[in-house]
Amino acid sequence: MDAMRLVILGAGGRMGRTLVRLASEAPEFAVAAAVERPGSAHLGDDAGTLAGVAALGVPVSDDLEAALREADGVIDFTAPAASVALALQTARRGLVHVIGTTGCSADDDAAIAAAGRDGARIVKSGNMSLGVNLLSVLVEQAARALGPDAFDLEILEMHHRHKVDAPSGTALLLGHAAAAGRGIDLADRSVRVRDGHTGPRPQGTIGFATLRGGSVVGDHEVILAGEGERITLKHHAEDRAIFARGALRAALWARSQPPGLYSMRDVLGL
Amino acid sequence: MDAMRLVILGAGGRMGRTLVRLASEAPEFAVAAAVERPGSAHLGDDAGTLAGVAALGVPVSDDLEAALREADGVIDFTAPAASVALALQTARRGLVHVIGTTGCSADDDAAIAAAGRDGARIVKSGNMSLGVNLLSVLVEQAARALGPDAFDLEILEMHHRHKVDAPSGTALLLGHAAAAGRGIDLADRSVRVRDGHTGPRPQGTIGFATLRGGSVVGDHEVILAGEGERITLKHHAEDRAIFARGALRAALWARSQPPGLYSMRDVLGL
Amino acid sequence: MDAMRLVILGAGGRMGRTLVRLASEAPEFAVAAAVERPGSAHLGDDAGTLAGVAALGVPVSDDLEAALREADGVIDFTAPAASVALALQTARRGLVHVIGTTGCSADDDAAIAAAGRDGARIVKSGNMSLGVNLLSVLVEQAARALGPDAFDLEILEMHHRHKVDAPSGTALLLGHAAAAGRGIDLADRSVRVRDGHTGPRPQGTIGFATLRGGSVVGDHEVILAGEGERITLKHHAEDRAIFARGALRAALWARSQPPGLYSMRDVLGL
Amino acid sequence: MDAMRLVILGAGGRMGRTLVRLASEAPEFAVAAAVERPGSAHLGDDAGTLAGVAALGVPVSDDLEAALREADGVIDFTAPAASVALALQTARRGLVHVIGTTGCSADDDAAIAAAGRDGARIVKSGNMSLGVNLLSVLVEQAARALGPDAFDLEILEMHHRHKVDAPSGTALLLGHAAAAGRGIDLADRSVRVRDGHTGPRPQGTIGFATLRGGSVVGDHEVILAGEGERITLKHHAEDRAIFARGALRAALWARSQPPGLYSMRDVLGL
Repeated sequence: MDAMRLVILGAGGRMGRTLVRLASEAPEFAVAAAVERPGSAHLGDDAGTLAGVAALGVPVSDDLEAALREADGVIDFTAPAASVALALQTARRGLVHVIGTTGCSADDDAAIAAAGRDGARIVKSGNMSLGVNLLSVLVEQAARALGPDAFDLEILEMHHRHKVDAPSGTALLLGHAAAAGRGIDLADRSVRVRDGHTGPRPQGTIGFATLRGGSVVGDHEVILAGEGERITLKHHAEDRAIFARGALRAALWARSQPPGLYSMRDVLGL
Repeated sequence: MDAMRLVILGAGGRMGRTLVRLASEAPEFAVAAAVERPGSAHLGDDAGTLAGVAALGVPVSDDLEAALREADGVIDFTAPAASVALALQTARRGLVHVIGTTGCSADDDAAIAAAGRDGARIVKSGNMSLGVNLLSVLVEQAARALGPDAFDLEILEMHHRHKVDAPSGTALLLGHAAAAGRGIDLADRSVRVRDGHTGPRPQGTIGFATLRGGSVVGDHEVILAGEGERITLKHHAEDRAIFARGALRAALWARSQPPGLYSMRDVLGL
Repeated sequence: MDAMRLVILGAGGRMGRTLVRLASEAPEFAVAAAVERPGSAHLGDDAGTLAGVAALGVPVSDDLEAALREADGVIDFTAPAASVALALQTARRGLVHVIGTTGCSADDDAAIAAAGRDGARIVKSGNMSLGVNLLSVLVEQAARALGPDAFDLEILEMHHRHKVDAPSGTALLLGHAAAAGRGIDLADRSVRVRDGHTGPRPQGTIGFATLRGGSVVGDHEVILAGEGERITLKHHAEDRAIFARGALRAALWARSQPPGLYSMRDVLGL
Repeated sequence: MDAMRLVILGAGGRMGRTLVRLASEAPEFAVAAAVERPGSAHLGDDAGTLAGVAALGVPVSDDLEAALREADGVIDFTAPAASVALALQTARRGLVHVIGTTGCSADDDAAIAAAGRDGARIVKSGNMSLGVNLLSVLVEQAARALGPDAFDLEILEMHHRHKVDAPSGTALLLGHAAAAGRGIDLADRSVRVRDGHTGPRPQGTIGFATLRGGSVVGDHEVILAGEGERITLKHHAEDRAIFARGALRAALWARSQPPGLYSMRDVLGL
């Protein structure tokens, strides 16, 4: 099959540059266009040079329409309004549309789902890492199979010293997967602080613990601890490019799917 | 529901004693009978006293027929011939029959499957630990979702200093699960030794590594290592009673199933 | 050298039984006497039978004086007043006296130190595990060598679901070792809760995180996380007998030392 | 104190660029000169631009003499002959000279030691990572304190799929540290392969195990496993810049030392 022609949105930003770099290095892809918003300081720069690889002969442009005409798919880590507007166009053209945009409202999500029914091949996820998405599926199953009467669920994460909130979004995502497996509501059953006299562990809760230090990109661990045995399901991220890698894999997968709205779980075949 | 009345076979051995102890401590179970082979030095001893708990008023006996008359189920970690013979009886009486016996031939397995069709509620597994069985299911899925082009599979185990073979049976069981997920043959694709000049890792292989030391009961780790991220699925055993615990859970689960032959995966609902 | 003749105090309790079992199994030791307080229900029972090993011909007795007459050393996990009183006697007789008693006041400690000057060979520690004591030495050195400008210090512990306080005493002991290495006061520089908006990690602090679940005996981890690298120093306890093992090793070591008050660091040669 | 003026050798190579980048970002340092060998394609390029940071106004030059005139120290990851020749000059000028060069002969080492006596402030190590050097000191102590009668020593490492030899140089370095702590010869007492029927673990040996996969930069673990407890000492590298960071820290430390030949253990104060 011919290399998949991709439009990279936000090509001047950190994620966009990583996407350009990885797509230009993989034979399955061709960077068909690199788009930035009107007024961006990067308009006219070569997308490859910006990304720290060889010049690609693809200048950063603000003409999205023209870009889409020559493309098989779009990678879109932008903002809700932009993603919704773009979905109308990818639907009309039957394109692959990978959406890593976060913060969408219920209305935004409904509009995106409609675009999937109208012809777009959409993969949308708040976390594009293959590993984290796989882990969340495994955690849900493990939490269901090893119930709260016998197995206690704990979630541990570590991030770099600059992170300002706790627990991490991914830890909460894993917590929701565990809660779904158990059929409970995470908000009701979380234990997020342990200090001093805590009393024995309340059965059926999900505990969180947080480590901070150094330059750790992101480590997550889900522990199921029973009488005499323990299961640990762990994800270790080395660099932030894993989100770009997952988006590219989603694009390739979606290319051979019928129109529709898909998740990373579909991409993983789970 | 009334407590499940169990017959414990091999009640004078290490596994039998553990089963008696755990069953006598759980309200879901009653130790209905404790059986040893004719001539055993333990005949007549109280099964509870042997197990290091309070006397149960259940003397160890060699009368299996009498034992089965008052029982809902049997826990059977014995030998192939004994398990096959017993399956005829559990089929006739419609009993739960949990078989942890190892070394069965294809003929033995066929006879046991027939007993499942004829009325017995059989759960059979070579490893009764809930955690290991769950892990093997998760490993198979992970190996399928994260393919060999992008993710390398490694299996690590650690056991005590007295263990005389490597890798462990459980490491191989996990290797087979990974190979099944990848649709490959483990024997063809294993790398079991790395020393000196190895060359780069051959794509699509499954690597094994072995640690030995101290009194470690059994640690197993399956690693899927890709570009920029790593998934680790891990089992830690604290004591050998986890096999007895798994067998008891299987018995309870099978009590409410129709006759048939089941695996631990069925017990876990996977 | 002849087997070391030991008096085991509290021989009817959990720790005492473990000490009797381990001492009776090691050729370096002989259980010379097993002592309980007057009125104990175990007086007259055989110490070996109580400990779950073969009968030793050593009945549990409340005559401490008689016991000491035939002994080379005493293992004492009792209470402060009893340990202080006993130290007068071990000093007079020049005996080895291993003290695992916790909760001693400054006055108690002074009296015990005096006994060391007067002839007793005392090893005293609040945690008799070889591994934990070694770890605390390593943590102190690591914390000194990798300073707070470049390396963040985090301490993680996991214990079983029944534990009612957090962090564990051992986690705090490791925290004090780290603080000593850094020349800071632990109380001033601990971060024991992280939840919600925390802001970036304050430089030079020591963070604690706590996991609870299953039957975990005790896992401790000290992490030093810098730019681009991480050191982890970890202790895993499989069973509570490690405290008894450490006490026995301390006794053997002290036998060939001059009178004095020693710590487990001395026993480890650190 | 004024910023330390550094000469970076091999400024066009991977390590040299990393050194320029890190030195230019830290206020403690100024990049005084960037040197390449005569004929290098990078001569005349700005060292900062090459390193991916802002232009520094420091062109890459092949005039080492001129470079040294304005410097407080030199960072030298080159080749044995070049390092030995440079040591004569750093001795004459009393400069700091950090040598990360590998492959030096006994004669080279003697010449470098002589330069230390003659006025140079030399820090030389085959592995400049702070963490690995610290770990090797801790491993030596742990191996000494927890002897072979009670604790088994195992060394585990994981690297990326492209690595062609096993075990890693760092694993062997840690093995030598452990052997030194035990007073044994590593070559005689290593177990580097376990497969099939191995028999029980031979007491006093040091076992190695190797994992390969993904893009792992380098993980090392030293395990001391005893009866009932386990110590694990672990190093995790996120990126190869840790060697440059260690060299810079060594330079800063050496600035306030008397002339001499030092190791990274001295830098760490161990």
